[in-house]
Amino acid sequence: MTDFTAFDAAVEAQAGDVLAQLAALCRIPSVSAERGPAMLDAAAFVQTLCTAAGVATEPADQPAGPPIIIGRAGSGERCLMIYNHYDVQPPDPLDEWLSPPFEPQVRDGKLYARGVSDNKGDLVARLAAIRIYQETVGPLPLRVLYVIEGEEEVGSPFLFRFGEEQGTLLSEADGCLWEFGSKNADENPVICLGVKGMAAFDLRVRTATMDAHSGNGGIFPNAAWRLTEALDSLRAPDGRVIIDGLLDHVRQPTEVEERLLESVPFNHVALQASYGFSNGLLGGLTGAAAVRRWLMEPALNVNGLVSGYSGPGSKTVIPAQATAKMDMRLVPELTPQIAFGLLREHLDRRGFSDVEIIDHNDYLMPWRTSPDSAIARAVTASISQVSALPPIVQPTSPGSGPMWELCGRNGVPVASAGVSWQDSHVHAPNESIRIADFVEGIKVIGRLLEQFARDDNE
Amino acid sequence: MTDFTAFDAAVEAQAGDVLAQLAALCRIPSVSAERGPAMLDAAAFVQTLCTAAGVATEPADQPAGPPIIIGRAGSGERCLMIYNHYDVQPPDPLDEWLSPPFEPQVRDGKLYARGVSDNKGDLVARLAAIRIYQETVGPLPLRVLYVIEGEEEVGSPFLFRFGEEQGTLLSEADGCLWEFGSKNADENPVICLGVKGMAAFDLRVRTATMDAHSGNGGIFPNAAWRLTEALDSLRAPDGRVIIDGLLDHVRQPTEVEERLLESVPFNHVALQASYGFSNGLLGGLTGAAAVRRWLMEPALNVNGLVSGYSGPGSKTVIPAQATAKMDMRLVPELTPQIAFGLLREHLDRRGFSDVEIIDHNDYLMPWRTSPDSAIARAVTASISQVSALPPIVQPTSPGSGPMWELCGRNGVPVASAGVSWQDSHVHAPNESIRIADFVEGIKVIGRLLEQFARDDNE
Repeated sequence: MTDFTAFDAAVEAQAGDVLAQLAALCRIPSVSAERGPAMLDAAAFVQTLCTAAGVATEPADQPAGPPIIIGRAGSGERCLMIYNHYDVQPPDPLDEWLSPPFEPQVRDGKLYARGVSDNKGDLVARLAAIRIYQETVGPLPLRVLYVIEGEEEVGSPFLFRFGEEQGTLLSEADGCLWEFGSKNADENPVICLGVKGMAAFDLRVRTATMDAHSGNGGIFPNAAWRLTEALDSLRAPDGRVIIDGLLDHVRQPTEVEERLLESVPFNHVALQASYGFSNGLLGGLTGAAAVRRWLMEPALNVNGLVSGYSGPGSKTVIPAQATAKMDMRLVPELTPQIAFGLLREHLDRRGFSDVEIIDHNDYLMPWRTSPDSAIARAVTASISQVSALPPIVQPTSPGSGPMWELCGRNGVPVASAGVSWQDSHVHAPNESIRIADFVEGIKVIGRLLEQFARDDNE
Repeated sequence: MTDFTAFDAAVEAQAGDVLAQLAALCRIPSVSAERGPAMLDAAAFVQTLCTAAGVATEPADQPAGPPIIIGRAGSGERCLMIYNHYDVQPPDPLDEWLSPPFEPQVRDGKLYARGVSDNKGDLVARLAAIRIYQETVGPLPLRVLYVIEGEEEVGSPFLFRFGEEQGTLLSEADGCLWEFGSKNADENPVICLGVKGMAAFDLRVRTATMDAHSGNGGIFPNAAWRLTEALDSLRAPDGRVIIDGLLDHVRQPTEVEERLLESVPFNHVALQASYGFSNGLLGGLTGAAAVRRWLMEPALNVNGLVSGYSGPGSKTVIPAQATAKMDMRLVPELTPQIAFGLLREHLDRRGFSDVEIIDHNDYLMPWRTSPDSAIARAVTASISQVSALPPIVQPTSPGSGPMWELCGRNGVPVASAGVSWQDSHVHAPNESIRIADFVEGIKVIGRLLEQFARDDNE
């Protein structure tokens, strides 16, 4: 077994420099929803980090949008795929940030910036580990195939085709280290073996060709009311999705998944403290019931509501148009196609055929992989060697990503490990990672390169 | 009976000039919700028009906000109060205007501009009539007391106190000509004897201290969902307000009101053509049932919805806050105070005590007056002399205004007459009046000065 003393010492010694690289990357406002020039700046910066780590890069053929970067390093029997992305979510609401989202700031042992947790922190930590491994231990003991895209936060629209076209290349991988990872409220590192699927869409109603004076509100249709009525038919107040027939497509957990679920803790008190819920969790969920809803059931989200007058004071108007910006989170075997079909039928059956579904065509398939794979074992072992508390293995993340598109279709098992914490505020203001987790995360990846190379129990 | 030949000839001859005055007033963007310097510009312009009409003005003591102008002219037994306002609604959505809202444009016999119908057209027509009467007929046969405010579109917050403080002055009036008036779809001029009350407010929910990643949507509360659930408990899809106990406070129509209601036509085909409703009127209402809902029942309106992400594409977020901008339209004896109390109790009873009611403190009382008053008879007679089709008398407008505050509390009967048409698009883009209606409206006011002075059947 390799001695990681020199590796760990170098990680500690270089922590400040690596953190500065991360801050520099976070300074680039690579908001994929905005499609600005920052996307290419971020891609170029990532390629520089790859080069410094001895990872040879080439942008994949991607005619529109920010490049998918393919990086290769090392040699050996085993091939480890690593997936990350250099794009970030929009930073609004801006006025809730304590420091500007693209001006990284260290406060109280944490680095705050948009994207620092999701997932520039992991990207920089992993490249640092690959570089420092070679500087302190020796040549990489396996092949690394690094896939880094710039459109994860807008649903990875090109990764679907990429995963298909690059099937031969991607199938070489024996396992994939997924993009993210976080400690939970009890400080256990969490390993995820799957993701939920996702489909982003708008529900849009137009009830008239123009707004009208609200004196007529007793008899004139109002798009905002119409939208709220349609929405209320889709989800119960306790959070269950009540679209007709949707749950019929949800696969029951396997025995293995059931076993994993039992070991997933759920600290609703810590969640309450983090998020300050005024009414607790939906339906008063706690414990095992909360875990099951959170991980194993579909979810339907309103991301935003837009209708009528939104300025100061009042405007006594009947809005002619209303839009709900939405996403669905899907679990096996509920595909986006099935979900959209059922949604349309559900609305039509209730007389809401005037409620349009604007499909953003951002589909991600739900996918889960086995806890018995070499990558799952190697990630578990690597974290166990470094972290104070043992890892928890979840059958899936509650989040989504192109896991089926990149790995599932090409037969590559997956596990995740990362540098985030319970209060990382992913997709929200004041996103952060703890510097100690970041340093620990680099150490975990160093072990993983070794563990995954020599694991032969698959 | 006075010969109006010279008066009418002068109205025709000066129509272009008066229309130019109206256009100049419409060019001033006096949006009271914005409280900008345009308010004082509009007030000054109105005072100039008053002076030209021989109406002596003084601004009432109004320490905050745009001035309430009091104008006086004429002498005689009878005193006619006239009420108008020089402020307008916000012009958005701007992109739906065919010509800019504050650049008046004549197209196809109509003048388009924000406020041209509500109610700068009436204000300018009435002052023109007063001026031309004196130029062509002789001294005014009655006293005119003109009250012109600049905050009608934000709920007339100062007129409440004005109506109380100026009670002695206002009680001198024998009747009041209300601000507006319109032809209906069948081209009958409509006279209104009352208004609905109004209360503007926001419903606001905060479910957490920050937004969260929508992967957690199965278990995390979502302010947008919470708001839609609360809203859906307040109004039935057919438009009836279902706040517990609210209808118990609605006074049944009197016999006189019932008789008037029977004569109110309801052309739902024309409304459909004007507004392009995708699903007809609420609850499929037509005919007498539509008239009753429209005029005699309260209404609850969503004016706008604001929550979460409203930009392009998608942002997979759970919003922590959601707001519905709303107004209630009230009928006797349902006061704003009663309605707010019932709304709070209704929400609390259903577990929505976290849904805040943000009371804008813009209250208007509901008020109706008798069809047998001198002013109602005089308005009816004056319109009948000029208009091609006979007027329809409605017990109330579906809209609101400070009628109780100005007239009701001071015992002054009210009737309305005005220059708008079915498609005036009040409070909406492409607001307009027809130039022929504007000219006819000036002629009506000329007759009214005469009719009201000599009507002694009261």
